[in-house]
Amino acid sequence: MTSGKPEAGVPFITFEGPEGAGKSTQIACLVARLQGTGVPHIVTREPGGTPLGTRVREVLLDPELSIDPLPEFLLYSASRAQLVTHVIRPALAQGHTVICDRYFDSSLAYQGAGRGLPVGLLRDLTREATGGLSPHLTVLLDLDPALGLRRVASRGQPDRLERADLGFHQRVRQGFLDLAAAEPRRFLVLDATRSTDVLAGEIWKAVERQLS
Amino acid sequence: MTSGKPEAGVPFITFEGPEGAGKSTQIACLVARLQGTGVPHIVTREPGGTPLGTRVREVLLDPELSIDPLPEFLLYSASRAQLVTHVIRPALAQGHTVICDRYFDSSLAYQGAGRGLPVGLLRDLTREATGGLSPHLTVLLDLDPALGLRRVASRGQPDRLERADLGFHQRVRQGFLDLAAAEPRRFLVLDATRSTDVLAGEIWKAVERQLS
Repeated sequence: MTSGKPEAGVPFITFEGPEGAGKSTQIACLVARLQGTGVPHIVTREPGGTPLGTRVREVLLDPELSIDPLPEFLLYSASRAQLVTHVIRPALAQGHTVICDRYFDSSLAYQGAGRGLPVGLLRDLTREATGGLSPHLTVLLDLDPALGLRRVASRGQPDRLERADLGFHQRVRQGFLDLAAAEPRRFLVLDATRSTDVLAGEIWKAVERQLS
Repeated sequence: MTSGKPEAGVPFITFEGPEGAGKSTQIACLVARLQGTGVPHIVTREPGGTPLGTRVREVLLDPELSIDPLPEFLLYSASRAQLVTHVIRPALAQGHTVICDRYFDSSLAYQGAGRGLPVGLLRDLTREATGGLSPHLTVLLDLDPALGLRRVASRGQPDRLERADLGFHQRVRQGFLDLAAAEPRRFLVLDATRSTDVLAGEIWKAVERQLS
Protein backbone atom coordinates (compact mmCIF):
# COMPACT_ATOMS: atom_id res chain seq x y z
CA MET A 1 0.00 0.00 0.00
CA THR A 2 2.71 2.42 -0.94
CA SER A 3 1.70 3.08 -4.54
CA GLY A 4 -0.70 5.76 -5.73
CA LYS A 5 0.75 8.50 -3.53
CA PRO A 6 -0.62 11.98 -4.12
CA GLU A 7 1.62 14.61 -5.63
CA ALA A 8 4.63 15.63 -3.55
CA GLY A 9 4.14 18.67 -1.35
CA VAL A 10 0.49 18.03 -0.51
CA PRO A 11 0.59 15.94 2.61
CA PHE A 12 -1.97 13.30 3.52
CA ILE A 13 -1.74 12.88 7.29
CA THR A 14 -3.58 10.29 9.37
CA PHE A 15 -4.00 9.96 13.11
CA GLU A 16 -4.21 6.53 14.69
CA GLY A 17 -4.41 5.07 18.17
CA PRO A 18 -6.96 3.84 20.68
CA GLU A 19 -9.97 5.75 21.89
CA GLY A 20 -8.88 8.00 24.72
CA ALA A 21 -5.39 8.64 23.31
CA GLY A 22 -6.18 12.26 22.45
CA LYS A 23 -6.48 12.11 18.65
CA SER A 24 -9.23 14.73 18.53
CA THR A 25 -7.26 17.12 20.72
CA GLN A 26 -4.10 16.73 18.65
CA ILE A 27 -6.00 17.14 15.40
CA ALA A 28 -7.46 20.38 16.77
CA CYS A 29 -3.96 21.59 17.70
CA LEU A 30 -2.64 20.76 14.25
CA VAL A 31 -5.55 22.50 12.56
CA ALA A 32 -4.87 25.63 14.63
CA ARG A 33 -1.24 25.64 13.50
CA LEU A 34 -2.22 25.10 9.85
CA GLN A 35 -4.73 27.93 10.06
CA GLY A 36 -2.11 30.15 11.69
CA THR A 37 0.34 29.52 8.86
CA GLY A 38 -2.26 29.75 6.07
CA VAL A 39 -1.90 26.18 4.85
CA PRO A 40 -5.07 25.08 3.00
CA HIS A 41 -6.35 21.88 4.54
CA ILE A 42 -9.36 19.73 5.28
CA VAL A 43 -10.12 17.48 8.22
CA THR A 44 -12.12 14.30 7.84
CA ARG A 45 -12.59 11.01 9.64
CA GLU A 46 -13.31 7.32 9.41
CA PRO A 47 -15.84 5.96 9.41
CA GLY A 48 -17.69 8.99 8.08
CA GLY A 49 -16.78 12.00 6.02
CA THR A 50 -19.41 11.46 3.32
CA PRO A 51 -23.21 11.05 3.48
CA LEU A 52 -22.71 7.28 3.03
CA GLY A 53 -19.89 7.20 5.57
CA THR A 54 -21.99 9.02 8.14
CA ARG A 55 -24.73 6.42 7.79
CA VAL A 56 -22.21 3.57 8.00
CA ARG A 57 -20.66 5.19 11.08
CA GLU A 58 -24.03 5.18 12.85
CA VAL A 59 -24.34 1.45 12.15
CA LEU A 60 -20.76 0.59 13.20
CA LEU A 61 -20.86 2.51 16.47
CA ASP A 62 -24.35 1.40 17.53
CA PRO A 63 -23.82 -0.41 20.86
CA GLU A 64 -27.05 -2.40 20.36
CA LEU A 65 -25.90 -4.04 17.13
CA SER A 66 -24.02 -7.35 16.87
CA ILE A 67 -21.54 -7.28 13.94
CA ASP A 68 -19.13 -10.10 13.08
CA PRO A 69 -15.48 -9.24 12.26
CA LEU A 70 -15.75 -9.66 8.47
CA PRO A 71 -18.91 -7.56 7.97
CA GLU A 72 -17.41 -5.01 10.35
CA PHE A 73 -14.35 -4.73 8.11
CA LEU A 74 -16.51 -4.57 4.99
CA LEU A 75 -18.51 -1.68 6.43
CA TYR A 76 -15.33 0.25 7.30
CA SER A 77 -14.02 -0.45 3.79
CA ALA A 78 -17.25 0.79 2.20
CA SER A 79 -16.99 4.06 4.09
CA ARG A 80 -13.28 4.30 3.22
CA ALA A 81 -13.76 3.73 -0.52
CA GLN A 82 -16.41 6.46 -0.71
CA LEU A 83 -14.23 8.83 1.35
CA VAL A 84 -11.10 8.35 -0.75
CA THR A 85 -12.94 8.94 -4.03
CA HIS A 86 -15.14 11.85 -3.02
CA VAL A 87 -13.16 13.67 -0.33
CA ILE A 88 -9.49 12.75 0.07
CA ARG A 89 -8.36 12.51 -3.57
CA PRO A 90 -10.24 15.65 -4.71
CA ALA A 91 -8.81 17.66 -1.78
CA LEU A 92 -5.24 16.55 -2.48
CA ALA A 93 -5.72 17.31 -6.17
CA GLN A 94 -6.71 20.87 -5.20
CA GLY A 95 -3.57 21.23 -3.11
CA HIS A 96 -5.24 20.87 0.27
CA THR A 97 -3.43 19.05 3.05
CA VAL A 98 -5.71 16.25 4.25
CA ILE A 99 -5.94 15.24 7.89
CA CYS A 100 -7.87 12.06 8.54
CA ASP A 101 -8.89 10.75 11.95
CA ARG A 102 -8.22 7.00 11.38
CA TYR A 103 -7.56 5.30 8.06
CA PHE A 104 -6.62 1.80 6.89
CA ASP A 105 -4.15 1.21 9.73
CA SER A 106 -7.14 1.09 12.06
CA SER A 107 -8.63 -1.77 10.05
CA LEU A 108 -5.34 -3.65 10.10
CA ALA A 109 -5.03 -3.15 13.86
CA TYR A 110 -8.66 -3.60 14.95
CA GLN A 111 -10.00 -6.16 12.47
CA GLY A 112 -6.64 -7.83 11.81
CA ALA A 113 -4.63 -7.92 15.03
CA GLY A 114 -7.68 -7.40 17.25
CA ARG A 115 -10.36 -9.60 15.67
CA GLY A 116 -8.03 -12.03 13.90
CA LEU A 117 -9.11 -11.56 10.27
CA PRO A 118 -6.39 -12.68 7.82
CA VAL A 119 -4.07 -9.79 7.03
CA GLY A 120 -3.80 -10.77 3.34
CA LEU A 121 -7.55 -10.35 2.89
CA LEU A 122 -7.49 -7.01 4.70
CA ARG A 123 -4.60 -5.69 2.64
CA ASP A 124 -6.03 -6.87 -0.71
CA LEU A 125 -9.41 -5.32 -0.12
CA THR A 126 -7.90 -2.17 1.34
CA ARG A 127 -5.86 -1.73 -1.83
CA GLU A 128 -9.10 -1.96 -3.83
CA ALA A 129 -10.96 0.41 -1.53
CA THR A 130 -8.24 3.07 -1.47
CA GLY A 131 -6.77 2.63 -4.93
CA GLY A 132 -3.46 2.18 -3.08
CA LEU A 133 -3.55 5.67 -1.52
CA SER A 134 -1.22 5.63 1.47
CA PRO A 135 -0.65 8.52 3.92
CA HIS A 136 2.63 10.45 3.88
CA LEU A 137 2.60 10.70 7.65
CA THR A 138 0.74 8.65 10.23
CA VAL A 139 0.75 9.90 13.80
CA LEU A 140 0.28 6.98 16.21
CA LEU A 141 -0.72 8.10 19.69
CA ASP A 142 0.29 5.05 21.67
CA LEU A 143 -1.38 4.37 25.01
CA ASP A 144 -1.79 1.51 27.47
CA PRO A 145 -5.33 0.25 26.69
CA ALA A 146 -6.30 0.13 30.36
CA LEU A 147 -5.55 3.83 30.63
CA GLY A 148 -7.34 4.64 27.38
CA LEU A 149 -10.46 2.80 28.48
CA ARG A 150 -10.47 4.65 31.81
CA ARG A 151 -10.26 7.96 29.93
CA VAL A 152 -13.14 6.93 27.66
CA ALA A 153 -15.26 5.65 30.55
CA SER A 154 -15.00 9.05 32.22
CA ARG A 155 -16.68 10.58 29.13
CA GLY A 156 -19.90 8.56 29.59
CA GLN A 157 -21.52 5.78 27.59
CA PRO A 158 -18.93 3.71 25.68
CA ASP A 159 -19.73 2.68 22.09
CA ARG A 160 -19.67 -0.86 20.71
CA LEU A 161 -15.92 -0.95 20.06
CA GLU A 162 -14.98 0.68 23.30
CA ARG A 163 -16.82 -2.01 25.26
CA ALA A 164 -14.70 -4.86 23.83
CA ASP A 165 -12.50 -6.65 26.34
CA LEU A 166 -9.05 -5.53 27.43
CA GLY A 167 -7.28 -8.42 25.64
CA PHE A 168 -8.74 -7.20 22.37
CA HIS A 169 -7.47 -3.69 22.99
CA GLN A 170 -4.03 -5.02 23.90
CA ARG A 171 -3.86 -6.91 20.58
CA VAL A 172 -4.92 -3.74 18.77
CA ARG A 173 -2.17 -1.74 20.45
CA GLN A 174 0.44 -4.31 19.46
CA GLY A 175 -1.01 -4.32 15.93
CA PHE A 176 -0.48 -0.57 15.64
CA LEU A 177 3.08 -0.85 17.00
CA ASP A 178 3.88 -3.63 14.51
CA LEU A 179 2.57 -1.51 11.63
CA ALA A 180 4.71 1.39 12.79
CA ALA A 181 7.80 -0.82 13.08
CA ALA A 182 7.26 -2.05 9.50
CA GLU A 183 7.02 1.50 8.09
CA PRO A 184 9.16 3.71 10.32
CA ARG A 185 9.42 6.49 7.73
CA ARG A 186 5.63 6.88 7.54
CA PHE A 187 4.87 6.54 11.25
CA LEU A 188 5.48 8.99 14.07
CA VAL A 189 4.89 7.04 17.28
CA LEU A 190 4.24 9.18 20.33
CA ASP A 191 3.63 8.35 23.97
CA ALA A 192 0.10 9.66 24.44
CA THR A 193 0.60 10.18 28.18
CA ARG A 194 2.86 13.15 27.50
CA SER A 195 1.42 16.66 27.77
CA THR A 196 -0.82 18.01 25.03
CA ASP A 197 1.64 20.81 24.24
CA VAL A 198 4.65 18.53 23.97
CA LEU A 199 2.77 16.14 21.69
CA ALA A 200 1.48 19.01 19.54
CA GLY A 201 5.04 20.30 19.17
CA GLU A 202 6.36 16.91 18.04
CA ILE A 203 3.53 16.53 15.55
CA TRP A 204 4.03 20.02 14.15
CA LYS A 205 7.73 19.34 13.58
CA ALA A 206 6.86 16.23 11.55
CA VAL A 207 4.14 18.02 9.59
CA GLU A 208 6.48 20.93 8.79
CA ARG A 209 8.90 18.44 7.25
CA GLN A 210 6.08 17.19 5.04
CA LEU A 211 5.08 20.71 4.04
CA SER A 212 8.61 21.84 3.14
CA MET B 1 -18.48 -21.10 -5.20
CA THR B 2 -19.57 -24.71 -5.24
CA SER B 3 -17.82 -25.91 -2.07
CA GLY B 4 -19.24 -25.78 1.43
CA LYS B 5 -22.66 -27.10 0.48
CA PRO B 6 -24.98 -27.92 3.34
CA GLU B 7 -25.93 -31.51 4.08
CA ALA B 8 -27.88 -33.29 1.35
CA GLY B 9 -31.66 -33.25 1.76
CA VAL B 10 -31.91 -29.76 3.24
CA PRO B 11 -32.31 -27.46 0.28
CA PHE B 12 -31.02 -23.93 0.15
CA ILE B 13 -33.10 -22.16 -2.51
CA THR B 14 -32.55 -18.65 -3.82
CA PHE B 15 -34.72 -16.43 -6.00
CA GLU B 16 -33.12 -14.02 -8.44
CA GLY B 17 -34.21 -11.61 -11.12
CA PRO B 18 -35.02 -7.94 -11.59
CA GLU B 19 -37.44 -5.91 -9.55
CA GLY B 20 -40.91 -6.45 -10.93
CA ALA B 21 -40.31 -10.06 -11.98
CA GLY B 22 -42.57 -11.46 -9.27
CA LYS B 23 -40.05 -12.92 -6.82
CA SER B 24 -42.13 -12.02 -3.77
CA THR B 25 -45.26 -13.58 -5.26
CA GLN B 26 -43.46 -16.79 -6.19
CA ILE B 27 -41.78 -17.03 -2.78
CA ALA B 28 -45.22 -16.70 -1.19
CA CYS B 29 -46.56 -19.48 -3.44
CA LEU B 30 -43.64 -21.75 -2.54
CA VAL B 31 -44.06 -21.07 1.17
CA ALA B 32 -47.74 -22.01 0.91
CA ARG B 33 -46.80 -25.32 -0.71
CA LEU B 34 -44.11 -26.03 1.91
CA GLN B 35 -46.56 -25.26 4.70
CA GLY B 36 -49.16 -27.51 3.07
CA THR B 37 -46.73 -30.43 2.95
CA GLY B 38 -45.27 -29.81 6.41
CA VAL B 39 -41.71 -29.07 5.26
CA PRO B 40 -39.88 -27.03 7.91
CA HIS B 41 -38.49 -23.90 6.30
CA ILE B 42 -37.47 -20.29 6.76
CA VAL B 43 -37.68 -17.34 4.39
CA THR B 44 -35.12 -14.58 4.43
CA ARG B 45 -33.78 -11.93 2.09
CA GLU B 46 -30.83 -9.83 0.99
CA PRO B 47 -29.94 -7.29 1.95
CA GLY B 48 -31.52 -7.82 5.35
CA GLY B 49 -32.47 -10.83 7.43
CA THR B 50 -30.47 -9.81 10.52
CA PRO B 51 -30.48 -6.64 12.65
CA LEU B 52 -27.28 -5.56 10.87
CA GLY B 53 -28.68 -6.51 7.47
CA THR B 54 -31.83 -4.51 8.08
CA ARG B 55 -29.77 -1.40 8.84
CA VAL B 56 -27.58 -1.98 5.79
CA ARG B 57 -30.70 -2.46 3.66
CA GLU B 58 -32.01 0.94 4.72
CA VAL B 59 -28.73 2.50 3.61
CA LEU B 60 -28.54 0.64 0.28
CA LEU B 61 -32.11 1.37 -0.77
CA ASP B 62 -32.13 5.04 0.29
CA PRO B 63 -32.84 6.98 -2.93
CA GLU B 64 -31.17 10.11 -1.47
CA LEU B 65 -27.78 8.44 -1.00
CA SER B 66 -24.97 8.35 -3.57
CA ILE B 67 -23.03 5.05 -3.33
CA ASP B 68 -20.17 4.06 -5.64
CA PRO B 69 -20.10 0.51 -7.08
CA LEU B 70 -17.37 -0.86 -4.77
CA PRO B 71 -18.83 0.40 -1.49
CA GLU B 72 -22.24 -0.78 -2.72
CA PHE B 73 -20.84 -4.28 -3.17
CA LEU B 74 -19.10 -4.15 0.21
CA LEU B 75 -22.34 -3.22 1.94
CA TYR B 76 -24.19 -6.12 0.28
CA SER B 77 -21.33 -8.43 1.25
CA ALA B 78 -21.45 -7.25 4.87
CA SER B 79 -25.16 -8.03 5.06
CA ARG B 80 -24.58 -11.38 3.34
CA ALA B 81 -21.78 -12.49 5.68
CA GLN B 82 -23.88 -11.77 8.75
CA LEU B 83 -26.90 -13.53 7.21
CA VAL B 84 -25.00 -16.70 6.28
CA THR B 85 -23.47 -17.07 9.73
CA HIS B 86 -26.46 -16.20 11.86
CA VAL B 87 -29.48 -17.28 9.80
CA ILE B 88 -28.81 -19.51 6.79
CA ARG B 89 -26.24 -21.94 8.19
CA PRO B 90 -28.02 -22.43 11.54
CA ALA B 91 -31.35 -23.05 9.77
CA LEU B 92 -29.86 -25.63 7.39
CA ALA B 93 -28.10 -27.31 10.33
CA GLN B 94 -31.49 -27.67 12.03
CA GLY B 95 -32.93 -29.28 8.89
CA HIS B 96 -34.92 -26.26 7.72
CA THR B 97 -35.21 -25.58 4.03
CA VAL B 98 -33.95 -22.03 3.44
CA ILE B 99 -35.54 -19.71 0.88
CA CYS B 100 -33.61 -16.52 0.25
CA ASP B 101 -34.86 -13.57 -1.81
CA ARG B 102 -31.58 -12.68 -3.62
CA TYR B 103 -28.09 -13.97 -2.79
CA PHE B 104 -24.63 -13.70 -4.31
CA ASP B 105 -25.86 -14.01 -7.91
CA SER B 106 -27.42 -10.57 -7.47
CA SER B 107 -24.02 -9.09 -6.63
CA LEU B 108 -22.43 -10.76 -9.64
CA ALA B 109 -25.21 -9.48 -11.90
CA TYR B 110 -25.77 -5.98 -10.46
CA GLN B 111 -22.30 -4.95 -9.28
CA GLY B 112 -20.39 -7.12 -11.78
CA ALA B 113 -22.27 -7.13 -15.09
CA GLY B 114 -24.27 -3.99 -14.27
CA ARG B 115 -21.72 -1.68 -12.62
CA GLY B 116 -18.60 -3.22 -14.15
CA LEU B 117 -16.70 -4.26 -11.01
CA PRO B 118 -14.12 -7.00 -11.76
CA VAL B 119 -15.70 -10.43 -11.41
CA GLY B 120 -12.58 -11.91 -9.79
CA LEU B 121 -12.81 -9.43 -6.92
CA LEU B 122 -16.52 -10.12 -6.51
CA ARG B 123 -16.05 -13.88 -6.48
CA ASP B 124 -13.10 -13.80 -4.08
CA LEU B 125 -14.83 -11.62 -1.55
CA THR B 126 -18.11 -13.51 -1.94
CA ARG B 127 -16.29 -16.74 -1.11
CA GLU B 128 -15.03 -15.09 2.08
CA ALA B 129 -18.42 -13.63 2.97
CA THR B 130 -20.35 -16.88 2.43
CA GLY B 131 -17.69 -19.42 3.42
CA GLY B 132 -18.35 -20.88 -0.04
CA LEU B 133 -22.02 -21.65 0.69
CA SER B 134 -23.79 -22.02 -2.66
CA PRO B 135 -27.54 -22.61 -3.16
CA HIS B 136 -28.81 -26.02 -4.33
CA LEU B 137 -31.42 -24.36 -6.51
CA THR B 138 -31.60 -20.83 -7.86
CA VAL B 139 -34.84 -19.73 -9.49
CA LEU B 140 -34.17 -16.97 -12.01
CA LEU B 141 -37.30 -15.07 -12.98
CA ASP B 142 -36.18 -13.59 -16.28
CA LEU B 143 -37.89 -10.46 -17.58
CA ASP B 144 -37.31 -7.74 -20.15
CA PRO B 145 -36.03 -4.83 -18.00
CA ALA B 146 -38.35 -2.33 -19.68
CA LEU B 147 -41.31 -4.42 -18.61
CA GLY B 148 -39.95 -4.91 -15.08
CA LEU B 149 -39.41 -1.20 -14.64
CA ARG B 150 -42.96 -0.46 -15.80
CA ARG B 151 -44.29 -2.95 -13.24
CA VAL B 152 -42.21 -1.34 -10.49
CA ALA B 153 -43.20 2.19 -11.51
CA SER B 154 -46.85 1.25 -11.14
CA ARG B 155 -46.15 0.46 -7.46
CA GLY B 156 -45.09 4.03 -6.66
CA GLN B 157 -41.77 5.60 -5.68
CA PRO B 158 -38.80 3.64 -7.13
CA ASP B 159 -35.78 3.07 -4.89
CA ARG B 160 -32.18 3.93 -5.73
CA LEU B 161 -31.44 0.80 -7.75
CA GLU B 162 -34.71 0.86 -9.61
CA ARG B 163 -34.00 4.37 -10.87
CA ALA B 164 -30.78 3.33 -12.66
CA ASP B 165 -30.93 3.58 -16.44
CA LEU B 166 -32.28 0.94 -18.78
CA GLY B 167 -28.83 0.04 -20.16
CA PHE B 168 -27.76 -0.89 -16.64
CA HIS B 169 -30.78 -3.14 -16.21
CA GLN B 170 -30.13 -4.78 -19.56
CA ARG B 171 -26.56 -5.61 -18.53
CA VAL B 172 -27.89 -7.02 -15.26
CA ARG B 173 -30.35 -9.25 -17.13
CA GLN B 174 -27.58 -10.58 -19.37
CA GLY B 175 -25.41 -11.08 -16.29
CA PHE B 176 -28.06 -13.29 -14.70
CA LEU B 177 -28.52 -15.28 -17.93
CA ASP B 178 -24.75 -15.81 -18.21
CA LEU B 179 -24.59 -17.08 -14.63
CA ALA B 180 -27.45 -19.48 -15.36
CA ALA B 181 -25.76 -20.73 -18.53
CA ALA B 182 -22.56 -21.42 -16.57
CA GLU B 183 -24.37 -23.46 -13.90
CA PRO B 184 -27.37 -25.06 -15.61
CA ARG B 185 -27.83 -27.69 -12.88
CA ARG B 186 -28.24 -25.05 -10.17
CA PHE B 187 -30.40 -22.58 -12.11
CA LEU B 188 -34.05 -22.84 -13.08
CA VAL B 189 -34.64 -20.04 -15.59
CA LEU B 190 -38.28 -19.07 -16.05
CA ASP B 191 -40.00 -16.55 -18.28
CA ALA B 192 -41.50 -14.20 -15.71
CA THR B 193 -44.27 -13.09 -18.07
CA ARG B 194 -46.00 -16.46 -17.73
CA SER B 195 -48.91 -16.79 -15.32
CA THR B 196 -48.33 -16.94 -11.58
CA ASP B 197 -49.83 -20.43 -11.35
CA VAL B 198 -47.75 -21.85 -14.19
CA LEU B 199 -44.55 -20.41 -12.69
CA ALA B 200 -45.45 -21.69 -9.22
CA GLY B 201 -46.00 -25.16 -10.67
CA GLU B 202 -42.60 -25.19 -12.39
CA ILE B 203 -40.88 -24.00 -9.25
CA TRP B 204 -42.62 -26.58 -7.07
CA LYS B 205 -41.53 -29.39 -9.40
CA ALA B 206 -37.91 -28.28 -9.06
CA VAL B 207 -38.18 -27.89 -5.28
CA GLU B 208 -39.76 -31.35 -4.92
CA ARG B 209 -36.74 -32.82 -6.69
CA GLN B 210 -34.52 -31.13 -4.11
CA LEU B 211 -36.63 -32.38 -1.22
CA SER B 212 -36.69 -36.00 -2.39
